[in-house]
Amino acid sequence: MRYISKQLPLYVQIAEGLADRIEVGELKPGQRLTSERELSDALGVTRVTLRQALHLLEAEGLITRKQGSGNYVAEPKIERKTTQLNPFTQGMERSGFKTGAEVTLQEKRSAKISVANRLKIPVSSDLHYYHRIRTLNNAPVMLEKFYFPVSYFPGLEEIDFHNRSAYEILKTEFNIVITSAEQSLEAVAASEYEADLLRISVGAPLLLERRIGFDQHNRPVEYAKDLYRGDKIKFLLDTHIEKDIQP
Amino acid sequence: MRYISKQLPLYVQIAEGLADRIEVGELKPGQRLTSERELSDALGVTRVTLRQALHLLEAEGLITRKQGSGNYVAEPKIERKTTQLNPFTQGMERSGFKTGAEVTLQEKRSAKISVANRLKIPVSSDLHYYHRIRTLNNAPVMLEKFYFPVSYFPGLEEIDFHNRSAYEILKTEFNIVITSAEQSLEAVAASEYEADLLRISVGAPLLLERRIGFDQHNRPVEYAKDLYRGDKIKFLLDTHIEKDIQP
Repeated sequence: MRYISKQLPLYVQIAEGLADRIEVGELKPGQRLTSERELSDALGVTRVTLRQALHLLEAEGLITRKQGSGNYVAEPKIERKTTQLNPFTQGMERSGFKTGAEVTLQEKRSAKISVANRLKIPVSSDLHYYHRIRTLNNAPVMLEKFYFPVSYFPGLEEIDFHNRSAYEILKTEFNIVITSAEQSLEAVAASEYEADLLRISVGAPLLLERRIGFDQHNRPVEYAKDLYRGDKIKFLLDTHIEKDIQP
Repeated sequence: MRYISKQLPLYVQIAEGLADRIEVGELKPGQRLTSERELSDALGVTRVTLRQALHLLEAEGLITRKQGSGNYVAEPKIERKTTQLNPFTQGMERSGFKTGAEVTLQEKRSAKISVANRLKIPVSSDLHYYHRIRTLNNAPVMLEKFYFPVSYFPGLEEIDFHNRSAYEILKTEFNIVITSAEQSLEAVAASEYEADLLRISVGAPLLLERRIGFDQHNRPVEYAKDLYRGDKIKFLLDTHIEKDIQP
């Protein structure tokens, strides 16, 4: 037997046990966990070990810890398919959520080099720039930051982006349809600015989706940086194997 | 004009300016930024505002702050295509990286309900369970936690997973090829256990990839939770538009 004798730290084992009970629904979303004293007694571990385990579960988004009130099983993360573009309004409403969009910033600015390169427009061209908070059942779950070149979308600033799909506006008002995109996903920490808008702690994990949207003429017409709350949203991937990377 | 007059906080604007200079390569990876005093003077902002901006850049992984030494432009994140499975060894070596894999835990355990459900095996069946640290040019970038049912892979514990592709082992030793997968991506915070192994701060953002791997007979034969350092790795997505979700 070549099994390595090194054991997982006790608190990791305790956390795994609790995670399992949450995943299979034995502990239900919104349910308050028994007190830390009772839980540590029941599991036969010290309060210190239990707290380490609870911190681990919190880090993974499985529980929320409310000061003075206790520990609660978190709601399951909402799933977003990565193969869908603009799924937020349609996708989420199909899933039964009430969606909302509140514009927190709307300005005209000139394109810096990095954005100009992505949109293949001259540096210093005019851009519409927006920040919007997206909500599900009135809770903020995502901060959108997006640019549209003014040359493609003159007069866009007259249109109200409140509670309306941006892609629907582009189609209805400008006959421009986003048909493909280059997208990436990163894990980043919430800055003070983002934490305030998303009502989370500074440093909380966020999924950053960068997206260049291409229209039906294959022109890059949108650059977006969308920040999703890590405790609320997960992305589902469609995967197949590329034959040439098989071992 | 319906532009909203509310301005972005000054530190966010400062951070955006610096981010642009990093993205276009005016400030290069590894380069030390000028001192905070000089930088705040040059930008005409207070040290407090500059520090807020630097925190934002650090949160996004664009700079690293070294205690007592200053601020450095971070290396660009390494890109990983989500359409590739098992890209780590092959994909990264193609990109010119030296890859490594160090087993930090190897044990036999019985399947809890959540894992048993995913692998469609009876609860309490025997599982091989591993933790491995994956390195690129000797720096830890990912912690793999994966399960293989013992029933499919008897004697797996005799095989050395050190610096070797797991999928290559499955194919060579068991004639089992992973041909598709169900995958998801989440942003989570590093627990103490993970932070130690990945040599990052507790709470640092990580990308959690959950994966169920299916073999050539369409059996779920692998369940993995891979944790990627958010400051090192980004995922690239392939996206098309589903016709039926067009507005």
